[in-house]
Amino acid sequence: MSTDAHLKEEKVDGGIAYDGGFLKIHKDRVRLPNGALTNREYIRHPGAVAILPVLDDGRILLERQFRYPNAQVFIEFPAGKIDEGEDHLECAKRELEEETGYTATEWHFVTTIHNAIAYSDEHLDLYLARGLKAGDVKLDEGEFVECFTATLDELLEWVRTGEVSDVKTVIGAFWLDKLRRGDWKLN
Amino acid sequence: MSTDAHLKEEKVDGGIAYDGGFLKIHKDRVRLPNGALTNREYIRHPGAVAILPVLDDGRILLERQFRYPNAQVFIEFPAGKIDEGEDHLECAKRELEEETGYTATEWHFVTTIHNAIAYSDEHLDLYLARGLKAGDVKLDEGEFVECFTATLDELLEWVRTGEVSDVKTVIGAFWLDKLRRGDWKLN
Repeated sequence: MSTDAHLKEEKVDGGIAYDGGFLKIHKDRVRLPNGALTNREYIRHPGAVAILPVLDDGRILLERQFRYPNAQVFIEFPAGKIDEGEDHLECAKRELEEETGYTATEWHFVTTIHNAIAYSDEHLDLYLARGLKAGDVKLDEGEFVECFTATLDELLEWVRTGEVSDVKTVIGAFWLDKLRRGDWKLN
Repeated sequence: MSTDAHLKEEKVDGGIAYDGGFLKIHKDRVRLPNGALTNREYIRHPGAVAILPVLDDGRILLERQFRYPNAQVFIEFPAGKIDEGEDHLECAKRELEEETGYTATEWHFVTTIHNAIAYSDEHLDLYLARGLKAGDVKLDEGEFVECFTATLDELLEWVRTGEVSDVKTVIGAFWLDKLRRGDWKLN
């Protein structure tokens, strides 16, 4: 990163400014590239996973979930926070089964995305799941999720029109499109 | 939304739990679809814009910026927060000129995305800018941004490899790909 010295900010001091249980805010004093001091406020997040579940007939498994901050129901890929020390792929398997009841025999890492770089260190790991088998849903207390399926063409059309606007779901749809076209391959 | 009653959460009471200047956290008591009470903590964000600037020769204008929460330099499309009461397109024009010095004669709304639906109401409006003309950069105090250009194929390759992981930039790249292919058109 030596070439980035003209962009880099260094922590002087700081710590947790707010701990509400669900959200933790850090506030640090930092030295800017020009030597000036400023504050940086940000969320520390354990990271999350999202699962792109493709059924044997090619249909995509999706969820509808009410998201309180925007007070609306979003169409989403199954996703969830990584527990402390939890392996990311194990987290993906757990979240898929808890939220949808499905288990999968085939798992592929797709990509990692950063969704709020200005004020959060959150990352999301996206996994493709195939060889899906239905089972029982085990939602967390207070979690209300509705599962449904759609074709990839339907999902892409909802991305185009803006009906799907959640970033992990938009990016997952574009990746599935690239893989179906054969433009990109999984590692 | 009558069909979503089984998913919807209703505010009971609540308000600002933390105001650090940059970040504002709200904490509300809410009634879940099953009648139980729980807390929802979230950030209220004014929204932001991101600009997909395409030069006359087809190259894409991008930025490199150090983002403190992840302590790394990200490749990004120009972007910025909407000022109170500011028109979103005017904000896009302002941010493009401030951060890159460029003005554009042609502007098109592309899409709106939601980047952290579990804990923020932030949305980002993406705009395509063409007819670009270079000018003077007017960065905010304490803002350090490096501009550069790349081809769309280079940008897509960085998305594929994960070198570009910022969600507005990933989604903007996929949209530019769809537009170049002629699969999708701007409204």
